[in-house]
Amino acid sequence: MGSDSDWPVVKAACTQLQAFGIPYEAHILSAHRTPAQAADFARSARQNGFGVLICAAGMAAHLAGAFAGNSTLPVIGIPMKGGAMDGLDALLATVQMPSGIPVATVAINGAKNAAVLAAQMLAISDDELAAKLDQARADMAKQIAEKEAKLQLESEE
Amino acid sequence: MGSDSDWPVVKAACTQLQAFGIPYEAHILSAHRTPAQAADFARSARQNGFGVLICAAGMAAHLAGAFAGNSTLPVIGIPMKGGAMDGLDALLATVQMPSGIPVATVAINGAKNAAVLAAQMLAISDDELAAKLDQARADMAKQIAEKEAKLQLESEE
Amino acid sequence: MGSDSDWPVVKAACTQLQAFGIPYEAHILSAHRTPAQAADFARSARQNGFGVLICAAGMAAHLAGAFAGNSTLPVIGIPMKGGAMDGLDALLATVQMPSGIPVATVAINGAKNAAVLAAQMLAISDDELAAKLDQARADMAKQIAEKEAKLQLESEE
Amino acid sequence: MGSDSDWPVVKAACTQLQAFGIPYEAHILSAHRTPAQAADFARSARQNGFGVLICAAGMAAHLAGAFAGNSTLPVIGIPMKGGAMDGLDALLATVQMPSGIPVATVAINGAKNAAVLAAQMLAISDDELAAKLDQARADMAKQIAEKEAKLQLESEE
Amino acid sequence: MGSDSDWPVVKAACTQLQAFGIPYEAHILSAHRTPAQAADFARSARQNGFGVLICAAGMAAHLAGAFAGNSTLPVIGIPMKGGAMDGLDALLATVQMPSGIPVATVAINGAKNAAVLAAQMLAISDDELAAKLDQARADMAKQIAEKEAKLQLESEE
Amino acid sequence: MGSDSDWPVVKAACTQLQAFGIPYEAHILSAHRTPAQAADFARSARQNGFGVLICAAGMAAHLAGAFAGNSTLPVIGIPMKGGAMDGLDALLATVQMPSGIPVATVAINGAKNAAVLAAQMLAISDDELAAKLDQARADMAKQIAEKEAKLQLESEE
Amino acid sequence: MGSDSDWPVVKAACTQLQAFGIPYEAHILSAHRTPAQAADFARSARQNGFGVLICAAGMAAHLAGAFAGNSTLPVIGIPMKGGAMDGLDALLATVQMPSGIPVATVAINGAKNAAVLAAQMLAISDDELAAKLDQARADMAKQIAEKEAKLQLESEE
Amino acid sequence: MGSDSDWPVVKAACTQLQAFGIPYEAHILSAHRTPAQAADFARSARQNGFGVLICAAGMAAHLAGAFAGNSTLPVIGIPMKGGAMDGLDALLATVQMPSGIPVATVAINGAKNAAVLAAQMLAISDDELAAKLDQARADMAKQIAEKEAKLQLESEE
Repeated sequence: MGSDSDWPVVKAACTQLQAFGIPYEAHILSAHRTPAQAADFARSARQNGFGVLICAAGMAAHLAGAFAGNSTLPVIGIPMKGGAMDGLDALLATVQMPSGIPVATVAINGAKNAAVLAAQMLAISDDELAAKLDQARADMAKQIAEKEAKLQLESEE
Repeated sequence: MGSDSDWPVVKAACTQLQAFGIPYEAHILSAHRTPAQAADFARSARQNGFGVLICAAGMAAHLAGAFAGNSTLPVIGIPMKGGAMDGLDALLATVQMPSGIPVATVAINGAKNAAVLAAQMLAISDDELAAKLDQARADMAKQIAEKEAKLQLESEE
Repeated sequence: MGSDSDWPVVKAACTQLQAFGIPYEAHILSAHRTPAQAADFARSARQNGFGVLICAAGMAAHLAGAFAGNSTLPVIGIPMKGGAMDGLDALLATVQMPSGIPVATVAINGAKNAAVLAAQMLAISDDELAAKLDQARADMAKQIAEKEAKLQLESEE
Repeated sequence: MGSDSDWPVVKAACTQLQAFGIPYEAHILSAHRTPAQAADFARSARQNGFGVLICAAGMAAHLAGAFAGNSTLPVIGIPMKGGAMDGLDALLATVQMPSGIPVATVAINGAKNAAVLAAQMLAISDDELAAKLDQARADMAKQIAEKEAKLQLESEE
Repeated sequence: MGSDSDWPVVKAACTQLQAFGIPYEAHILSAHRTPAQAADFARSARQNGFGVLICAAGMAAHLAGAFAGNSTLPVIGIPMKGGAMDGLDALLATVQMPSGIPVATVAINGAKNAAVLAAQMLAISDDELAAKLDQARADMAKQIAEKEAKLQLESEE
Repeated sequence: MGSDSDWPVVKAACTQLQAFGIPYEAHILSAHRTPAQAADFARSARQNGFGVLICAAGMAAHLAGAFAGNSTLPVIGIPMKGGAMDGLDALLATVQMPSGIPVATVAINGAKNAAVLAAQMLAISDDELAAKLDQARADMAKQIAEKEAKLQLESEE
Repeated sequence: MGSDSDWPVVKAACTQLQAFGIPYEAHILSAHRTPAQAADFARSARQNGFGVLICAAGMAAHLAGAFAGNSTLPVIGIPMKGGAMDGLDALLATVQMPSGIPVATVAINGAKNAAVLAAQMLAISDDELAAKLDQARADMAKQIAEKEAKLQLESEE
Repeated sequence: MGSDSDWPVVKAACTQLQAFGIPYEAHILSAHRTPAQAADFARSARQNGFGVLICAAGMAAHLAGAFAGNSTLPVIGIPMKGGAMDGLDALLATVQMPSGIPVATVAINGAKNAAVLAAQMLAISDDELAAKLDQARADMAKQIAEKEAKLQLESEE
């Protein structure tokens, strides 16, 4: 993430990764304030064993783009809501990447979805993880069904 | 893709996948006009051997979301430019997915980048493909260097 | 509705339908989390005796579109305010439907108006309901007149 | 429609209504230039035998709202693209109606969908028309299937 | 104004008109809920002695446009902030009028400026009022000068 | 106007003023390139016999605001379409004036309406001009009626 | 700054200038309420020894543009957040300047960055100040490193 | 500039710098495709004798931000119009920089103004250049005056 102020949102990604049993590291690295460190981290990420990079940044959100320019690992970008424009600036600065350097962009503040997307990428070649994803999806459907049942009960009263 | 009118943009993704030697299928399936077929396709995609799903759609672009709701494979969404709003409607309808169901969104009309992103996902567990991605990145840098050299030559004259 | 978090807004539609004496059912069904159930519900809605379908969803709001793709009953879409973009994302994802599959879109969070619109549709062939709609309109005009009278009284003091 | 310049778009609605065998009238009436005639038309529409009103207007698009304020028939609004803002101004001016006075808004320039939506409303109590709608939907799916088949043929070559 | 909920903002216009000694009336009239009364008011405004009409409305703000369509008096529109879109919808619905029917639009929630603008219009042929406007402008400059002086004092300490 | 490139749009205002028999002057004055002349013109406008000031400018459109800051005559602003943003930048820069300094803003490129609005302001104390405005309005309604009649004729064929 | 209400944001610029040891003056001057004083200030700024002008204004933010039109010193514009549109109106009114009259625009409410940018401009010919800027940049990187270290400590626990 | 496709716009900056007699270099460097070269260039720019850095980039425009993160020289950003969103994406990605790392942003496609702003920065300590800037401003005013004179001549005929 680009700043420690992003942590309250970003930790939802960590929680989700833990729930899937996926090892991860969380770091604070800024495309603008520590550009050399950010570039180094991205450049060496594949050989350091990372499979996916998740970047969260707000405003003129360059972190995901800077990572994508320095690595050919898939980079997931989380545009952070905040300040003026409520995150539309961060969304456009994250998603509108030039040809050849994609950033897999999720919804504004979509930290949990970034983790789910990372798990989906890793699950392409990991059947056990794919099964966990299917289970999580079934759990979500079950939650909806329970809420639906609760609503029907209340409306019968 | 949601419509054959998307093909002129979408085929850039096919060209890129071919360049990486990645087998693919192209289909026309509509979230609104053929919803059952679209859902069936997505639901059976993993067992049919697909690793990544790429969806292109415009306006109230639901195709990527419909695929993402029916599969736990990673789904890449290409918002199509066009009509009113120049694709901002398609971008928001593609990226602003609810918690638990991500769509990896690329730039408006970003078909080539969708293919590159798909390759990056598959390359997590495919070192040969990863090497191709690194090579493609080096080629891009070389192109920039050649254009830079040409610009310097012209300005010297 | 796509989520139980939409209920505080959506119940205004139920209240309005009750006021008109129109029978209704409220359900929680998600285009993304329970896509098969949502599709089934829409596909069988006409033969189950429904006349109009009202769908409320936020962000990349696909529920109304998914219903519209699976039924030829009129579908009314309520874009839900919330998160980033204050509902503009939901509005565009609801209204910008492709040719052949309309969604009758009302204002952001316009649950009461969705109910009024449903009543207007049903009243095309129901003179008693049409009379209730005319009465409701007259009541609204009377309320405005009372507020106007109160304002004039206050300004005279 | 508010202006004869809207006709090239609006006639797609007429064509669609004819295809469904629904009698209709097309008129030019302006909320701003002929407000009294527009109000009169709307006020007497139900007793003149109209079932649904479709209004097309651009920019500060008030025609649908003016009709909705003067009739309790369902009013469908078509925001017209054009001038500055590419129709976003017309979309917001059409859809963001106050409580109690809905306008069933379709996509920008969505004239055909306005006709389909009108047919859906009338089909609530007209089984023959409902069957035509189902047939039209099946035809659309067939067209998609044909385009899909053509694409597969071309890619095999 | 279109609703009594607009009153907290609109009364700033009344206060300003009183300060200039300009007689005025405040009314609640809705373009949608009481369209006939609104049209009647506008149509008879000039012969009833009004010189300028000020209309405040939010969302799909049609009141100013409805007045402008029914009178050739100058109509000032105040787009009201509120709900989704923070007033941008009201601004566009107020200002983007068709050719021949202008609305003199002021800033979102700009009630005081609507009154100043009305005074400027009336002052074209009223030298006494023009002098009051010049005085008000001089007072504003003086206030700025006092704040500037206070700031310099504080920064010297 | 701020630039001679605005003239093709602005001359529609001149044509309209001539049609009403209102004397006018057209000038090129820039808030940024000739600020002193623009300020002088505005400051002396009332004593030079002007009744209304109309300003057209694009992008960061300051001309109307600069005039409004230097005169208490009513100032009408025409936001010019063009460049990036299609005139939304000019609209916001023209209409969002601070308290006390209004600009009567018309639609983007709304030069004719600026002239009509100016005529409406002058007609507050000029019954002959008011009659011309009523006549122009009647002519507009007649044009609509003729187009409506033509449409009915064509549809009968 | 255009109003004393801007002071809570603008004083961050003063604090930053003091930290760099750069002498400065803070003034309240309005492009609309005190246009002559604002123009005079800008016109005489270079001969009064100023090197850079920083202007903060909101809504139809003309102050920076008015300064830029009256001086060839570099002018930095701070668009102020506030009111409707959350500062997008101020951003566009500040940055979209016509050819020949630039305003160096920083982020919405970016007062500290305006000061840093002013320092960067002055440091072109001031090596001591340039060294201070490098030191401030190193301090920022150190802060990030400390936050990163703290995060790693917490995640080890 | 980030791509040779930016050259037709960017060369207007070069032309303007030449007109002021300011030595410059033009380079193609991409924040995403050649990130290491871009960072190196920026990091060594001050010691290589550059005074100001001008960066032009479109879409998720990161070049100016990448330069600003690697140098404490003033960085001017030109958001390039193009693709979807007409440059608003580039504008936000350029201007909304985080605290401590400003980019002096000019109008979309504002290449000439970038050069003028660079000249203004350099002229802080270069009286001869300052005189050229004043002369250029006087020439612009003269051009306006000539166009104004031509307009008056034409309107007299």
